[in-house]
Amino acid sequence: MGYTELDQLAINTIRTLAVDATFKANSGHPGAPMGMAPVAHVLFNKFMSFNPQNPKWLNRDRFVLSNGHGCMLQYALLHLFGYKVSMDDLKSFRQIDSITPGHPESHDTPGIEVTTGPLGQGFANAVGLAIAQKHTAAIFNKPGYDLVNNYTYVFFGDGCAMEGIASEAASTAGHLKLNNLIAIYDDNHISIDGDTKCAFTEDVLKRFEAYGWHTEWVKDGDHDLEGIEAAIRRCKEVKDKPSVIKLTTTIGFGSKLQGTGGVHGNPLKPDDCQHVKKSFGFDPEKTFVVPQEVYDLYHKHASEGAAKEQEWNQLVQKYGSEYKAEYEDLTRRLAGKLPEGWEKNLPTYKPTDAAVASRKLSEAVLEKVHSALPELLSGSADLTGSNNTRWKNAVDFQPPEYGIGDWSGRYLRYGVREHAMAAIMNGLAAYGTVIPAGGTFLNFVSYAAGAVRLSALSRVRVIHVATHDSIGLGEDGPTHQPIETLAHFRALPNCMVWRPADGNETSAAYYSALTSHHTPSILALTRQNLPQLENSTIENGLKGGYTVLPVSNPNVILISTGSEVSICIEAATYLKEKHNVNAAVVSVPCFEVFDAQSKEYRLSVLPDGVPIMSVEALSTMGWERYSHEQFGLNRFGASGPYKEVYKKFEFTPEGISKRAIATIDFYKGHNVRSPVNRAFQQIL
Amino acid sequence: MGYTELDQLAINTIRTLAVDATFKANSGHPGAPMGMAPVAHVLFNKFMSFNPQNPKWLNRDRFVLSNGHGCMLQYALLHLFGYKVSMDDLKSFRQIDSITPGHPESHDTPGIEVTTGPLGQGFANAVGLAIAQKHTAAIFNKPGYDLVNNYTYVFFGDGCAMEGIASEAASTAGHLKLNNLIAIYDDNHISIDGDTKCAFTEDVLKRFEAYGWHTEWVKDGDHDLEGIEAAIRRCKEVKDKPSVIKLTTTIGFGSKLQGTGGVHGNPLKPDDCQHVKKSFGFDPEKTFVVPQEVYDLYHKHASEGAAKEQEWNQLVQKYGSEYKAEYEDLTRRLAGKLPEGWEKNLPTYKPTDAAVASRKLSEAVLEKVHSALPELLSGSADLTGSNNTRWKNAVDFQPPEYGIGDWSGRYLRYGVREHAMAAIMNGLAAYGTVIPAGGTFLNFVSYAAGAVRLSALSRVRVIHVATHDSIGLGEDGPTHQPIETLAHFRALPNCMVWRPADGNETSAAYYSALTSHHTPSILALTRQNLPQLENSTIENGLKGGYTVLPVSNPNVILISTGSEVSICIEAATYLKEKHNVNAAVVSVPCFEVFDAQSKEYRLSVLPDGVPIMSVEALSTMGWERYSHEQFGLNRFGASGPYKEVYKKFEFTPEGISKRAIATIDFYKGHNVRSPVNRAFQQIL
Repeated sequence: MGYTELDQLAINTIRTLAVDATFKANSGHPGAPMGMAPVAHVLFNKFMSFNPQNPKWLNRDRFVLSNGHGCMLQYALLHLFGYKVSMDDLKSFRQIDSITPGHPESHDTPGIEVTTGPLGQGFANAVGLAIAQKHTAAIFNKPGYDLVNNYTYVFFGDGCAMEGIASEAASTAGHLKLNNLIAIYDDNHISIDGDTKCAFTEDVLKRFEAYGWHTEWVKDGDHDLEGIEAAIRRCKEVKDKPSVIKLTTTIGFGSKLQGTGGVHGNPLKPDDCQHVKKSFGFDPEKTFVVPQEVYDLYHKHASEGAAKEQEWNQLVQKYGSEYKAEYEDLTRRLAGKLPEGWEKNLPTYKPTDAAVASRKLSEAVLEKVHSALPELLSGSADLTGSNNTRWKNAVDFQPPEYGIGDWSGRYLRYGVREHAMAAIMNGLAAYGTVIPAGGTFLNFVSYAAGAVRLSALSRVRVIHVATHDSIGLGEDGPTHQPIETLAHFRALPNCMVWRPADGNETSAAYYSALTSHHTPSILALTRQNLPQLENSTIENGLKGGYTVLPVSNPNVILISTGSEVSICIEAATYLKEKHNVNAAVVSVPCFEVFDAQSKEYRLSVLPDGVPIMSVEALSTMGWERYSHEQFGLNRFGASGPYKEVYKKFEFTPEGISKRAIATIDFYKGHNVRSPVNRAFQQIL
Repeated sequence: MGYTELDQLAINTIRTLAVDATFKANSGHPGAPMGMAPVAHVLFNKFMSFNPQNPKWLNRDRFVLSNGHGCMLQYALLHLFGYKVSMDDLKSFRQIDSITPGHPESHDTPGIEVTTGPLGQGFANAVGLAIAQKHTAAIFNKPGYDLVNNYTYVFFGDGCAMEGIASEAASTAGHLKLNNLIAIYDDNHISIDGDTKCAFTEDVLKRFEAYGWHTEWVKDGDHDLEGIEAAIRRCKEVKDKPSVIKLTTTIGFGSKLQGTGGVHGNPLKPDDCQHVKKSFGFDPEKTFVVPQEVYDLYHKHASEGAAKEQEWNQLVQKYGSEYKAEYEDLTRRLAGKLPEGWEKNLPTYKPTDAAVASRKLSEAVLEKVHSALPELLSGSADLTGSNNTRWKNAVDFQPPEYGIGDWSGRYLRYGVREHAMAAIMNGLAAYGTVIPAGGTFLNFVSYAAGAVRLSALSRVRVIHVATHDSIGLGEDGPTHQPIETLAHFRALPNCMVWRPADGNETSAAYYSALTSHHTPSILALTRQNLPQLENSTIENGLKGGYTVLPVSNPNVILISTGSEVSICIEAATYLKEKHNVNAAVVSVPCFEVFDAQSKEYRLSVLPDGVPIMSVEALSTMGWERYSHEQFGLNRFGASGPYKEVYKKFEFTPEGISKRAIATIDFYKGHNVRSPVNRAFQQIL
């Protein structure tokens, strides 16, 4: 309360910075920053605690710009508060290798919590950040030590509000009663197609009420700073619900085109830039101007944040003397380290051990490691009993009043919401104290493709437990049998796709996923049982690819993954017996990890002079990287008992052998070069 | 009204068929069919018009089972009404090559309108079917000729209600005031994780009200047949809204485990099967029993439907004499034929024509062909001005009362709802009278992956106009620049991915997409300008791949797509001038179409003896199919002006030439075989 001309000056400074940066870049979105500058000013200065000198302070309030195209708002704020975002950085907006790219990227820019832009993602990330706060508080807060009590604020626009992922996440947040989450909806009536009345006429607040949210409406978001502050304050008083504030604003406020689509996604024209500045009392000839008193105001708030962090650090030190174990756990997590020796809990198997489905092998890993890894939060998109993601004594993460779990619970019931689950996991991982793992069928990881892509781009450790990974799921049929899915995610940069063949490889997959701090992993797991293989060890698995069945002087190498590896081994026996052919078998549970091995090692697995045939019961696309010939499934599957489906498509020792013989014949007399040999390096 | 014991007998027959079929298959979902048998009985017998002898009758009411796992409900109904689904078919439930697969597949089974199972899809398909009805009625109905007035009914469960795609579609349907759409929500409180209270506690009806739907609640869906009928009747009276009926049911009604998760996704135990039959008065020892009076009842309704169709056929004949042009248009559409000579409207280009972005070339196609193809419905997910999907004089499809379009409009404003757009297009295509095309950025087709997959599986003609197809989009940066996307959809069976290099190839892409009756197409189009190429013709484009720059005695072949083809041609000049190297260039705008050419032709394009290098500014995955070496982008892109981004990643004549030289050197002295030569055929 008590807003002065200085506040207005600060708001208009943000607006003119957005105008100047988009104009200079000749690209970008001035409209949202101009419209949302008032609420950003109020929120950041009156409510948010953060320390620009340490953007990673655990108990900072989190801010997410889900309408990430408005990122000049965020870059301007970061600059004004003194984060390491310089005026030159603002001037390099949307230029190559700048820290101010076209949409906010968390790994590039200090103070950006999550990578946004693809609409709806940030909203769901914010739900993840809020869940992580609740959980972390439940684990570490003690009487007198309110260590973790931050809020998560998210801005979102009409585009986010229309996206299904945001609906899923909002329903989840309402169910979970996340009162630490406050969302501000930029109700500016404009999307790229113009007035939202052409496609979006629903009652957004009523919808959020239906999800169980507290709702507020500030009708004049352009001017009513007191109203904005009062609304946020009321939201913070709500104890059992997340809150949403519908903030009616004028997009591009101050522009000649304000309130129209013309100001959404294009820089203002030169005369309009001047018009904006004149009407705000700025010199129309100058660009990138920040009045010193605005810096002073923002730096003062930044200093207060720094002081708060210092106070907090002292509290944590005191906490350490009283709660030693918790303190050590917390500092370890924040240092990004796993507990010493946790990996000794990974199960190992002998060839004589029983055949087990890899979804069950995954469950065995979770059962064994969960107590050694308190930061591990598991969950499923309503397929708990199929994904086997829940260890026996797991507690659900739920509001305690439901009587079915509590905030300390480490098992999340995501509901049938794959896309939100993946994006919530991105938010969980971004919080800094937990490692999320979430299950669905491999085929339905595709529903979450948008969020998985952002896991990879934003370099977060998220584990997708993707069961029912092929036609091997049987009766559910083609609608549920992935074909293209592994090719899709193998083509995604910085994403590890594991398809383990047995127990030791499953343990290796988890070891890799849990220790890959900056990379998400997809674990493709079977519904059907898999035998434990000779030569399969965690160590071998961790090479990404290795010879699981060595033979001397092989006539052919069969290279395979997951459930097809043991069939290849059977095929090798068949080939020897029926055709006197020596077939070696290579298991390559993870392309990305195998590719990272030395060329020497890769050539030892896939040597020159031997024809190589790949076998995987999914699309052959991508397998040419390791093989001369490919046996796979470039059509949709079939509904039936899985053994019959395998037989129909000839993924049998006989079917593989027939093609192996054809491969040997085809390359007879040719000097076969290993596919590992390449003419040049890829740009990485 | 006036329900008798016969009605109850019919309902229980459906239930016992579901019990028997899932038990025999030892797989499947008895719970939903048992719970929804009453509403299905009422809906199909009291409200729906259809003719089992002609499942394709245009004016039939449409039924969609969005909770497709409950498909034994639908198979039982189809059998009872006399569709070509025999008792043996029911006994082959979930068996290889049966017409009763684990989830309903429209191309397999007469009477199945759309392929469902992946949750939420069917709900959105139903919105598409309802839009198609409204539009078709607006075009063809005349005073006295209410030719098209069918309803679309959709059943959906908690899983569908949680999925974002259904939220998007419901918001769209509410906006569009689709009063011809009635959705029935199986409120059974059970999903796979058990009681929905663990994840799903929102107020579903209130949410639908917020979307602008009429809502009803039938509290006893197990017994209250009159209540169900009355509710549906009230919905049909609503003239300006879609309707949803929340039907509270008991999942697995009749089972010992009714109302629990135990009956959701597993067959009943033998004693429970007997229990169900006893309690319904059926012989517990007999299986697959249909009392004759139930057949009689259902066949009577089927005969009434057949009579209605006959009446309708007579009306159409009369219509034909009065409205000759409309009659011919309608019968042509229903015969699946495009208008004679429509393709003459496709634009063609000479090498001297200006460079144009392929998104603009796509606009030019739409501009030229839309009047020749009245069945073409275009649209965009709120990127109209960027996708260039709207021809100049297009009318929006909107409720007339908004004053911004009408029901005859052929341009759909999908909002920022990519997943629903794709699934709505699947529904539009399934209706039978329109061809849908919808735009978004290529990167955000990934948001719609679940629905695109079902386009392919269910074999519908849907066109995805996917602009901004690479790092060439420039400043928006890595969050918007696809890398993995082409590999993903090229790996999807029965999906054509086009990436045209210029105007003639763009026309070829549209020709192929519009004439591929059973295949969806994704047209990957540039934001940046592309020159018109020598040797590019529609005819060449339609081969999927061809030599765009032939040279005699090539030292290397550069194979490429889209915006990189003209850079390869520049590289060829550079190679000749600087290195005296002969480089041919091949353009392969569509892998799927090229693969379908004769081996002889493919070998003429990619002959033995010449090293081949691919160039595409996206993931290299899959390019090994046509090349020995691959130049691509196996990392995320960068935000900046597009020419600088291309330079950064070396997609320049120099960058390509450097690698071409390395390729030539690497294969020197090796007898290089064309990748077209394969040891064996793939299973297709």
